[in-house]
Amino acid sequence: MARVTPLSGFPEWLPDGRVVEQHVLDVLRRTFELHGFAGIETRAVEPLDQLLRKGETSKEVYVLRRLQEEGEDASADGGRGEKQLGLHFDLTVPFARYVLENAGRLAFPFKRYQIQKVWRGERPQEGRFREFVQADIDVVGAGELPYHYEVEVPLVMAEALGALREVGLPPVRVLVNNRKVAEGFYRGLGLSDVEGVLRQIDKLDKIGVEKVAELLVAEQGATAEQAAACLDLAAIHGSDTTVVDDVRKLAARYDAATDLLETGLAELGALIEAAGARAPGVVVADLRIARGLDYYTGSVYETLLVGHEQLGSICSGGRYDTLASDGKNTYPGVGLSVGVSRLVSRLLSAGLMTATRGVPTAVLVAVTDEDHRAQSDAVAAALRARGIPTDVAPSAAKFGKQIKVADRRGIPFVWFPGEEHQVKDIRSGEQVGADPTTWAPPAEDLHPRVVPGE
Amino acid sequence: MARVTPLSGFPEWLPDGRVVEQHVLDVLRRTFELHGFAGIETRAVEPLDQLLRKGETSKEVYVLRRLQEEGEDASADGGRGEKQLGLHFDLTVPFARYVLENAGRLAFPFKRYQIQKVWRGERPQEGRFREFVQADIDVVGAGELPYHYEVEVPLVMAEALGALREVGLPPVRVLVNNRKVAEGFYRGLGLSDVEGVLRQIDKLDKIGVEKVAELLVAEQGATAEQAAACLDLAAIHGSDTTVVDDVRKLAARYDAATDLLETGLAELGALIEAAGARAPGVVVADLRIARGLDYYTGSVYETLLVGHEQLGSICSGGRYDTLASDGKNTYPGVGLSVGVSRLVSRLLSAGLMTATRGVPTAVLVAVTDEDHRAQSDAVAAALRARGIPTDVAPSAAKFGKQIKVADRRGIPFVWFPGEEHQVKDIRSGEQVGADPTTWAPPAEDLHPRVVPGE
Repeated sequence: MARVTPLSGFPEWLPDGRVVEQHVLDVLRRTFELHGFAGIETRAVEPLDQLLRKGETSKEVYVLRRLQEEGEDASADGGRGEKQLGLHFDLTVPFARYVLENAGRLAFPFKRYQIQKVWRGERPQEGRFREFVQADIDVVGAGELPYHYEVEVPLVMAEALGALREVGLPPVRVLVNNRKVAEGFYRGLGLSDVEGVLRQIDKLDKIGVEKVAELLVAEQGATAEQAAACLDLAAIHGSDTTVVDDVRKLAARYDAATDLLETGLAELGALIEAAGARAPGVVVADLRIARGLDYYTGSVYETLLVGHEQLGSICSGGRYDTLASDGKNTYPGVGLSVGVSRLVSRLLSAGLMTATRGVPTAVLVAVTDEDHRAQSDAVAAALRARGIPTDVAPSAAKFGKQIKVADRRGIPFVWFPGEEHQVKDIRSGEQVGADPTTWAPPAEDLHPRVVPGE
Repeated sequence: MARVTPLSGFPEWLPDGRVVEQHVLDVLRRTFELHGFAGIETRAVEPLDQLLRKGETSKEVYVLRRLQEEGEDASADGGRGEKQLGLHFDLTVPFARYVLENAGRLAFPFKRYQIQKVWRGERPQEGRFREFVQADIDVVGAGELPYHYEVEVPLVMAEALGALREVGLPPVRVLVNNRKVAEGFYRGLGLSDVEGVLRQIDKLDKIGVEKVAELLVAEQGATAEQAAACLDLAAIHGSDTTVVDDVRKLAARYDAATDLLETGLAELGALIEAAGARAPGVVVADLRIARGLDYYTGSVYETLLVGHEQLGSICSGGRYDTLASDGKNTYPGVGLSVGVSRLVSRLLSAGLMTATRGVPTAVLVAVTDEDHRAQSDAVAAALRARGIPTDVAPSAAKFGKQIKVADRRGIPFVWFPGEEHQVKDIRSGEQVGADPTTWAPPAEDLHPRVVPGE
């Protein structure tokens, strides 16, 4: 085991980084539960044929093989009738399968959160993670799912991420769009290859307005006027319902009004209005968002970290009319997924969030000599019985050395047992008499805290 | 996605089962942190050559292949210089690698807990899990690790499992043995193939005393008297230090006393004595425990659920003199691993532990009509702001139907908004006026609770 090198794309944190990640996960979990989302976990693997239902992701899947299959045709089932398995690359595919498998035992609409690792066989040189934690919320209905869940889901996420503001998370901006608006507008213009148009609009950031206009003409067969209309639509954004009026005016100008567009505008307007009341300034309609619209059927969401926009979306999702279907029943859904590892990686590397210490321990009990270790153990037990995370010194070294043991770990207090117990705050040097059955550290020292970086 | 069938060996729980599992994990985490163990997570994959260092486990490893490698020689690195990767089958191998990789940034002795999934490519017909959650604690030293950690670690686990007694976990019995006792005794007898003897002793449960005696003679070259001595040693067990005296007497009878035996007895005696004081009746010396002794170098632990002994050990571990080594430094360790999935699976299937509901929600706010949904959302926000998990009814159906929505999910309270708000306990039918800014459910209804089964 001499040669140990990190694996590119498989992030790991030191204990103090894990304190930050754990805090992020705890806050997300708490917020999701406050809103009535039930926690589930699914297995990490799915049959390969399920994972490959969407061709676009086929390159990213890790396929499993039992080692003793070596030499057999790895792409077949080895004659055992076992399905070939792959690691899930998101939490949506497994959730859809879980819903179908347990439909008779779940109550719909079913609100669930799910916090697990996912894997993608990205090429490491792209600097993308191959293993990362996602935190998803979804609401799934049986047969139908009211629109108001498309309003609720991004607001729950905004609240969850907002709860991390006080420990150093920059503000977030949730960008929303609606498939029905884009599709209704394009069709009203006379452009029927909706997905083709969306694919070009998605290139705006990379190649700019003029190049996209050229492509819309060259590849989507748009007239110059149609291309201009698409670009005008993409330029509309804002955090109040004037956005709806702007789109309606644009549609009137190009004679592109359709029923689908009106449905989409009513939905988008309702979302913007509710978000403006419940989370002012967080949710912004942005008609340029194209990624996801080819996939989702209603609302679509992306989330930017203000000041870190180049990180890309840290939380994306949308509405599907068919999250799952078993041929007889259809399950529409709406959800959002936080890329926790990407977020935590940035928080740590940019020093935005930090832990006050990397160990849970608030008190280190010194050991006078090894024959009296039981006395120190008893003090530790008394403190733990009152919920105070406590450790006992590794050895009965000189007290100066035992204090260094605490100091190196960021443990704020060292306890000296004896007939008259003493406890020392090693930061201030203050040392006082104390009773292990009643003394407690200040609340802010009880557990490691996560705080904004310097 | 029409055909959906569970995968054998990959357990999943319904939401109320997950409440139980989450509670078990929360209690373990809390106890580990009270004792100063820092939480870490490692990636799920390790280079295959690391995973195969111990030949015995080679059959159980899942090897990963990126899908686009298809057709290439799957056992080679595809010419990309990428190491072949496998899923970890325990948390010890990755922890050892993590220690080496981060040795310069960790403080030793380093106490960590780690709660993650592991994977083993067991044949499904054996009815064993292929994916399961483990909860490990380990203490690792740099160069040396004092014996008292071999006392501490099983006591921490006994406390963690003991904290689950009140919610239905049967009592546990931690069985301990010590490699030095067995090896010292066998060598004192003149038997030098210590691992061979241990392998035969390990068969006692399966084939009985007489057959094991025959095998010791036939395969380990023992005399009938040596075989009898080994079996006499294996018969010794007890929860106080008379066990030490019994072994000492036995060694005197067979003239098998050695320094190694004495060292082992001193260690075992110290463990039994400390455990008797700190967790009476939980820790039992059992000299028959052989599994693990070929692997560990000092104490070894197994844990039985009283009344469910046939389930096997739910928590095992021991002391290694070399958990990890980078050629220059050696890192001895001692640890224990709870098989959480095995445990939770039994708790659920035997009905030993159950959740009061499968959703976090304490209150469902009814919706009078869709035009007044915002009023219900405002009530929910007021309740959540005070930490009360709250949901809003999916639709403005008749109130009877909205009450059924709550009833089907086990939500105890339904809130009727209006000029005079009312809240109904749907179990008793009692309905009272209430203020969303001050009302709270009884503490026992605030969150789903885990309770002993009927």
